[in-house]
Amino acid sequence: MTRYDFLTFGENMIRLSTRNYERLEQAQTVDIRHGGTESNTAMGLVRLGLSAAWVSRLVNNALGQKIAGELSQWGVDTSHVVWTNDGRMGTFFLEVGSPPRPSSVLYDRRDSSMSRMTVADFPWSLLSESRWLHATGITTGISESCRELAGEAMRRGRAAGLFVSYDVNYRARLWSTDQARAGMSPLCSDADIMFVTQADAARVFGVQGSSAEDTIRTLAGAFARKAVVMTMGAQGAMAFDKESVALYRSPGYLVPQTIDRIGAGDAFDAGFIAGYLEEGIEKGLAFGNAMAALKMTIHGDFPFVSRAEVETLVAGGTAGINR
Amino acid sequence: MTRYDFLTFGENMIRLSTRNYERLEQAQTVDIRHGGTESNTAMGLVRLGLSAAWVSRLVNNALGQKIAGELSQWGVDTSHVVWTNDGRMGTFFLEVGSPPRPSSVLYDRRDSSMSRMTVADFPWSLLSESRWLHATGITTGISESCRELAGEAMRRGRAAGLFVSYDVNYRARLWSTDQARAGMSPLCSDADIMFVTQADAARVFGVQGSSAEDTIRTLAGAFARKAVVMTMGAQGAMAFDKESVALYRSPGYLVPQTIDRIGAGDAFDAGFIAGYLEEGIEKGLAFGNAMAALKMTIHGDFPFVSRAEVETLVAGGTAGINR
Amino acid sequence: MTRYDFLTFGENMIRLSTRNYERLEQAQTVDIRHGGTESNTAMGLVRLGLSAAWVSRLVNNALGQKIAGELSQWGVDTSHVVWTNDGRMGTFFLEVGSPPRPSSVLYDRRDSSMSRMTVADFPWSLLSESRWLHATGITTGISESCRELAGEAMRRGRAAGLFVSYDVNYRARLWSTDQARAGMSPLCSDADIMFVTQADAARVFGVQGSSAEDTIRTLAGAFARKAVVMTMGAQGAMAFDKESVALYRSPGYLVPQTIDRIGAGDAFDAGFIAGYLEEGIEKGLAFGNAMAALKMTIHGDFPFVSRAEVETLVAGGTAGINR
Amino acid sequence: MTRYDFLTFGENMIRLSTRNYERLEQAQTVDIRHGGTESNTAMGLVRLGLSAAWVSRLVNNALGQKIAGELSQWGVDTSHVVWTNDGRMGTFFLEVGSPPRPSSVLYDRRDSSMSRMTVADFPWSLLSESRWLHATGITTGISESCRELAGEAMRRGRAAGLFVSYDVNYRARLWSTDQARAGMSPLCSDADIMFVTQADAARVFGVQGSSAEDTIRTLAGAFARKAVVMTMGAQGAMAFDKESVALYRSPGYLVPQTIDRIGAGDAFDAGFIAGYLEEGIEKGLAFGNAMAALKMTIHGDFPFVSRAEVETLVAGGTAGINR
Amino acid sequence: MTRYDFLTFGENMIRLSTRNYERLEQAQTVDIRHGGTESNTAMGLVRLGLSAAWVSRLVNNALGQKIAGELSQWGVDTSHVVWTNDGRMGTFFLEVGSPPRPSSVLYDRRDSSMSRMTVADFPWSLLSESRWLHATGITTGISESCRELAGEAMRRGRAAGLFVSYDVNYRARLWSTDQARAGMSPLCSDADIMFVTQADAARVFGVQGSSAEDTIRTLAGAFARKAVVMTMGAQGAMAFDKESVALYRSPGYLVPQTIDRIGAGDAFDAGFIAGYLEEGIEKGLAFGNAMAALKMTIHGDFPFVSRAEVETLVAGGTAGINR
Amino acid sequence: MTRYDFLTFGENMIRLSTRNYERLEQAQTVDIRHGGTESNTAMGLVRLGLSAAWVSRLVNNALGQKIAGELSQWGVDTSHVVWTNDGRMGTFFLEVGSPPRPSSVLYDRRDSSMSRMTVADFPWSLLSESRWLHATGITTGISESCRELAGEAMRRGRAAGLFVSYDVNYRARLWSTDQARAGMSPLCSDADIMFVTQADAARVFGVQGSSAEDTIRTLAGAFARKAVVMTMGAQGAMAFDKESVALYRSPGYLVPQTIDRIGAGDAFDAGFIAGYLEEGIEKGLAFGNAMAALKMTIHGDFPFVSRAEVETLVAGGTAGINR
Repeated sequence: MTRYDFLTFGENMIRLSTRNYERLEQAQTVDIRHGGTESNTAMGLVRLGLSAAWVSRLVNNALGQKIAGELSQWGVDTSHVVWTNDGRMGTFFLEVGSPPRPSSVLYDRRDSSMSRMTVADFPWSLLSESRWLHATGITTGISESCRELAGEAMRRGRAAGLFVSYDVNYRARLWSTDQARAGMSPLCSDADIMFVTQADAARVFGVQGSSAEDTIRTLAGAFARKAVVMTMGAQGAMAFDKESVALYRSPGYLVPQTIDRIGAGDAFDAGFIAGYLEEGIEKGLAFGNAMAALKMTIHGDFPFVSRAEVETLVAGGTAGINR
Repeated sequence: MTRYDFLTFGENMIRLSTRNYERLEQAQTVDIRHGGTESNTAMGLVRLGLSAAWVSRLVNNALGQKIAGELSQWGVDTSHVVWTNDGRMGTFFLEVGSPPRPSSVLYDRRDSSMSRMTVADFPWSLLSESRWLHATGITTGISESCRELAGEAMRRGRAAGLFVSYDVNYRARLWSTDQARAGMSPLCSDADIMFVTQADAARVFGVQGSSAEDTIRTLAGAFARKAVVMTMGAQGAMAFDKESVALYRSPGYLVPQTIDRIGAGDAFDAGFIAGYLEEGIEKGLAFGNAMAALKMTIHGDFPFVSRAEVETLVAGGTAGINR
Repeated sequence: MTRYDFLTFGENMIRLSTRNYERLEQAQTVDIRHGGTESNTAMGLVRLGLSAAWVSRLVNNALGQKIAGELSQWGVDTSHVVWTNDGRMGTFFLEVGSPPRPSSVLYDRRDSSMSRMTVADFPWSLLSESRWLHATGITTGISESCRELAGEAMRRGRAAGLFVSYDVNYRARLWSTDQARAGMSPLCSDADIMFVTQADAARVFGVQGSSAEDTIRTLAGAFARKAVVMTMGAQGAMAFDKESVALYRSPGYLVPQTIDRIGAGDAFDAGFIAGYLEEGIEKGLAFGNAMAALKMTIHGDFPFVSRAEVETLVAGGTAGINR
Repeated sequence: MTRYDFLTFGENMIRLSTRNYERLEQAQTVDIRHGGTESNTAMGLVRLGLSAAWVSRLVNNALGQKIAGELSQWGVDTSHVVWTNDGRMGTFFLEVGSPPRPSSVLYDRRDSSMSRMTVADFPWSLLSESRWLHATGITTGISESCRELAGEAMRRGRAAGLFVSYDVNYRARLWSTDQARAGMSPLCSDADIMFVTQADAARVFGVQGSSAEDTIRTLAGAFARKAVVMTMGAQGAMAFDKESVALYRSPGYLVPQTIDRIGAGDAFDAGFIAGYLEEGIEKGLAFGNAMAALKMTIHGDFPFVSRAEVETLVAGGTAGINR
Repeated sequence: MTRYDFLTFGENMIRLSTRNYERLEQAQTVDIRHGGTESNTAMGLVRLGLSAAWVSRLVNNALGQKIAGELSQWGVDTSHVVWTNDGRMGTFFLEVGSPPRPSSVLYDRRDSSMSRMTVADFPWSLLSESRWLHATGITTGISESCRELAGEAMRRGRAAGLFVSYDVNYRARLWSTDQARAGMSPLCSDADIMFVTQADAARVFGVQGSSAEDTIRTLAGAFARKAVVMTMGAQGAMAFDKESVALYRSPGYLVPQTIDRIGAGDAFDAGFIAGYLEEGIEKGLAFGNAMAALKMTIHGDFPFVSRAEVETLVAGGTAGINR
Repeated sequence: MTRYDFLTFGENMIRLSTRNYERLEQAQTVDIRHGGTESNTAMGLVRLGLSAAWVSRLVNNALGQKIAGELSQWGVDTSHVVWTNDGRMGTFFLEVGSPPRPSSVLYDRRDSSMSRMTVADFPWSLLSESRWLHATGITTGISESCRELAGEAMRRGRAAGLFVSYDVNYRARLWSTDQARAGMSPLCSDADIMFVTQADAARVFGVQGSSAEDTIRTLAGAFARKAVVMTMGAQGAMAFDKESVALYRSPGYLVPQTIDRIGAGDAFDAGFIAGYLEEGIEKGLAFGNAMAALKMTIHGDFPFVSRAEVETLVAGGTAGINR
């Protein structure tokens, strides 16, 4: 029986961000929120009407409880979280920039409780109650035991008949591109759907075609069972469907002022998965781009977006005042 | 004797707006201000050097007093407000969006004290002390007794020799387009000046010409004694002068980043009326567009604009630093 | 099978409170939180380790969702809430005073969605899955249909074998003391446990003995099946056990500076119920007083208290730094 | 005809205060408000139901307008303010302390526009429309021309048959005690009512009796035509009525936590004057103490107090929750 | 021996700025920071790896100490500041606008302690320990004694063999263009490097060529020993090298949203000087433009920029997320 | 030659504290400041007019620079800090409570850069330029290498003829009482002055006399060469002078409302050392108690206190308004 449309696992960190474009050096006050790629995607799916569970290993203190509480508030099932007194909650400091000044993230995730999760900790029985399993390159990169966990989850997920997706999400502070390529390639091959940015295609896998189309075709030759989905920032997204051997494009939406870009890729994944499950790749791309564009206008990692907003945007609606 | 250059009446609500583009769901703090279309216009006229009085029916508690106090602070005469313990102060929650995410207003104005105002409550003697009377479609739509009041005011105002203006200001949450057309058409016909957005021309009156010029000519055929003024968002504004049978256009000013669009139309009306009284329709359009553009850069419903700023903008001045 | 240790129902409102002892007239910013007596108590029980469900009727908009979301975050089950588009979410403005200036609450709860709840709306099947049912005088007072609902719930609860408790919680803005006495007396008689303040004993029931002991004995003669629990502000609390015919007192804890007194009574109820279920009336009073004292030091309606803090206080611990 | 119950004149400054007991060195943000002893008293009288006008000389820029606007908001008539481009608006930085750390004020009032006001600037015709005239030692001390103005106002006020009051309000940063004694003695003698703190009696006039009673009797021997009113901080206030040769005391109210003590003396004056005009000295002292105590719990210079709160306090009411 | 790469002197004021584009009239809260053109440049040079000392005359109170303390925090040597009890700390109120609404500065610098600095106060021995001396038109304009000081410093600096630079920085509220031209011309002639905006070239010196190139050539004919550097807002900057008789241009960087433009010119000077000292004029222009563009994205007068950010921007890097 | 009156070393952490008594669970915003016992004491000494240097090992990123920058701002010499890319900056979350709710600190200092400092890293040459050396039990407890460093510093400091002081400062989250006693006893014996709380005397050293006097005499029998100083919270402090064999007491100051108690002990040490150096133990106790009391009224770890405030308090001054 399907209890969860979407099952994922990974780290969530305390996010300490400066306000109003302040630099960290100037700040006397920071916003305290939470963020982690997989839980961001899980929340995105809940916003679009699906059920989602997120598994992690959290420290049983005020910080860990704060994370689980907030995810519950937004409808993500956290009842399978593994609670521990071992390790610490990772944190990151975020400075939101304004062009030409880049945004800047200072991670402090060493020895996090999630990085010590092992295959033995995972509630494997959930696989039989779920429809889709999602893993990312961040979990794969944070520790040896998590890499093993990600691989095992992908294998067991596929064996149990779930849709299995993988988002490359390369983080240079976690591992080198060589390590990442070695660690992620088998998982990308194994996935039904592989999500990757055009930039990561180049720096992690060395795939930099003469055109975006060329790049995605090369990736599709090497990875994924059903489709490769490639995001290209302001240029939108592209997908190559290996089943129909067809290429799809979706141009993306104009976002004149970025409020907070963290989590836009995670929101894209949520939009794609929801659209794909409903009608296939084209709707997946449209929903993905809409979710990402809307997320860019929202503070925090989480996509506080409604399905109605996504649908209005996809239908060509414009931003005015709803009143 | 003219005591007030401008007399208007309507509702003012407690405005609770999220900060820094936060969504209401995320917010732990909201700004508390006030807003109402007619009082916004009244304040705009005060900023441009005219005297203005605003009539309403307010609850005699901290919320009602807060509204009257703030309008007094900005120079609007509130001494003719009718104080009551009947009904409640309306409130609205505003979420300021950033494209492609729309702004969103959640009204909670049911049973407001103003909606219970009747013809008997109005201080009619003010008509003999005033020069211009202004009413809007919002007041017309909030209740049966207010519709009657608006009609009566328009009739008596004209009879007393005042300039009489009417802004359509359709709100879908108050009434259907059919109800609105039926309710507003006689008032639009009666008005010397009718203000309407291009969007409301289409959805309320079904007038959607092959061009904006075509639209405004059609409207002028049906409504207003002196002129129809139509605003077109970023495209500026247009006026059809029925006396000289002439069409005027004014292109609007570039506003790269919208800080708060609520009240821009009200500020336009104030600018138009001030300019019109001074030199006629052309100056009215120029001042209206300048007021609206400046208001877009200001938090809150109220146009905190100086006459000098309007004149500089109309004269082609650019935004740098005044120092 | 017991799914919920505690089941309750009632209204929850948007709480808009000024900051740092500001007066509403001065405020440009207010905190937006939520509050309602029954949900406050439900959360208090969750903090002490029990499971709790809260039933209400909420408007299906951002405000209603915000309330349900926050209660979920703090672990209260809201899955049985009835969602509607009828009515509005009540709000209240709170100005926290500092002696000798009183705190002040301005309610705006007219026509709230909860006030329109009927006996037919309630998920009665929950009674068979719950252990304790709690109702209050506020729900009894907000509307005719809610009064009926409260009475029906008390009857059915008792019939189903649940512990049934009732907190008088008189609100003068809802009904007169005569109406309240008439409306609440049968429910107080029916309850296993009746909670009442010494002040309400006097003004609602006219019971003002020569001493607190005298007062509670008189109340116990008229109301409740098992016990009457009377709170006396800084003087602590007292309970009369009708089964053992014994009187218990608990002196209360010193709170030198009140941060926010709203919800202290609700926190008391939670502490009493938890302690009573574990060991009886004495522990109930001790936990109740500790919960109330700790709540006084916390912003918002909700008791953000841990069981460890309650136990430390009951054990005579002092406030220093936990590090 | 009486247009104003109360007429006063003096300086009002931009008040920049640190928040939450921060020290100025730490602060990145300060609250911007306004304050000046005479306008504080004027607002206090408006709160108690009297009409009040305040005369000053303000710079015609955003800062001067901000002051006049805010006073208007609170109902003080500012239509007789003299607008100028000469001089500057004074400012002061306030650091609110918590015992044993004192509050600290850093004045920057040199060359303020008010300090350049002269006898010729004053709208003397107001005297015939007013009932009470109030001046203070601050205005007397800020410049030579203001000293002359204060003296002239006291003389003309008395000549026109107004009640005339004078508050010593010694500020050590403005003048020495010798200068102050010389400058203020004739005005204190001339006043119907003289307000003075016990501390100023000692340091300015060298009157430090063996008891407070002794002190006030000595003062009454030298100053005032009708009464001397002496405030004694937490010990309340005392008045000596020269007409009935009677001494009155009022013990003051307990204020456990001071939110902001600036303006408490000004609020006292307002309370005294209102009570005195209604029923005489006893009510004056009671209202004065109540106003001062309530002001201590309110941020900013202004007494945001309602008449109902004053009356409740005077009647022995206690601070709980008004709901 | 070189102890300081850069030596400068001038005023620094308390900067009170509204938040989030609020108008001063609306504001209840302002940010309190510090700013002054020469100290801004000094800090910019420290960010780029040079040592810098700033000389001024500060009041020995909390405001003066706050300024010196903050400059120390950012690495500027303030040990040669002259402390005094004479005069006051200047302040300015800043309202950050959003186009088409201009930013607005309201200065209150009359009688500032710095304006009373004389030639006798300056620590002249520093000249022998420094490499570069920088003066500006603001210091030249604030008082007679400062004009003398600026002239003397330029002369002694050149005599001691330092690079000497001068930034015109005309402020209309300090002096007329005629006064400024008379006062600044000799200093501009004497300087090795003259910094000037295209606008000041026209309004102060009446040099408005048929093209920017024409303008700068005219200026170079009249002023500076080594080079004239002219900034042109969004059009970037240009330099004319009198030694090689060559013209250099640098196009400037796109800044879609200006967070705070105050101090951008000062940051440019710092970037130019650092680049010029390292490699010459071309690098000076590139670094200057990069510093100015990055400063536009940062709150406050100070350029919180790292050398790495400048180099990345100069090398063509784009703004994304550094993580 | 004496360059520094006071030399110390230790860890400083990023301090993230909730505002206005919020609980961490509720907080969306936290203040970001810095704190560490030894640097707090160093700053306290600077406030009292002494020179102080603080040695530490900081990560060369924005967080480490923020700490060094702020200490520089407050006048503490940080030029001997060892910069590294090894390890991380420790952080702690602080929840300021209000009685009976305790304050709560959640440390996250594992693997901090300071904890990896070794004897080889220390700039030993500073000993010959300093007058007093101060170490604490926190540095002794954070790692093996720091324990060694603390011991070596105490030995070398004494050998170099410096006054050497040691504050026990036991932290239960760092080590057990058995470990702490073993680790600290030799250092306490070696110190000229030993600082200890009455509570630590009992839990770490098992010394709990029949009276405070009894306790301090026992401690003095075992530890310190010159004096033992024992603080007793609200009861003030006591010192036993081993040279004169005399006992001194100082009663402490009343602090009705605690703003922030973190750092009060560190401020005491600073006050004691300054007073002791000037006049001996009695002045040391008086200054220590005054510094601690004033610190309790100030946000943050740092004692933003002036010498004048300390002297006024010691002289019996009361808290009013300085104006």
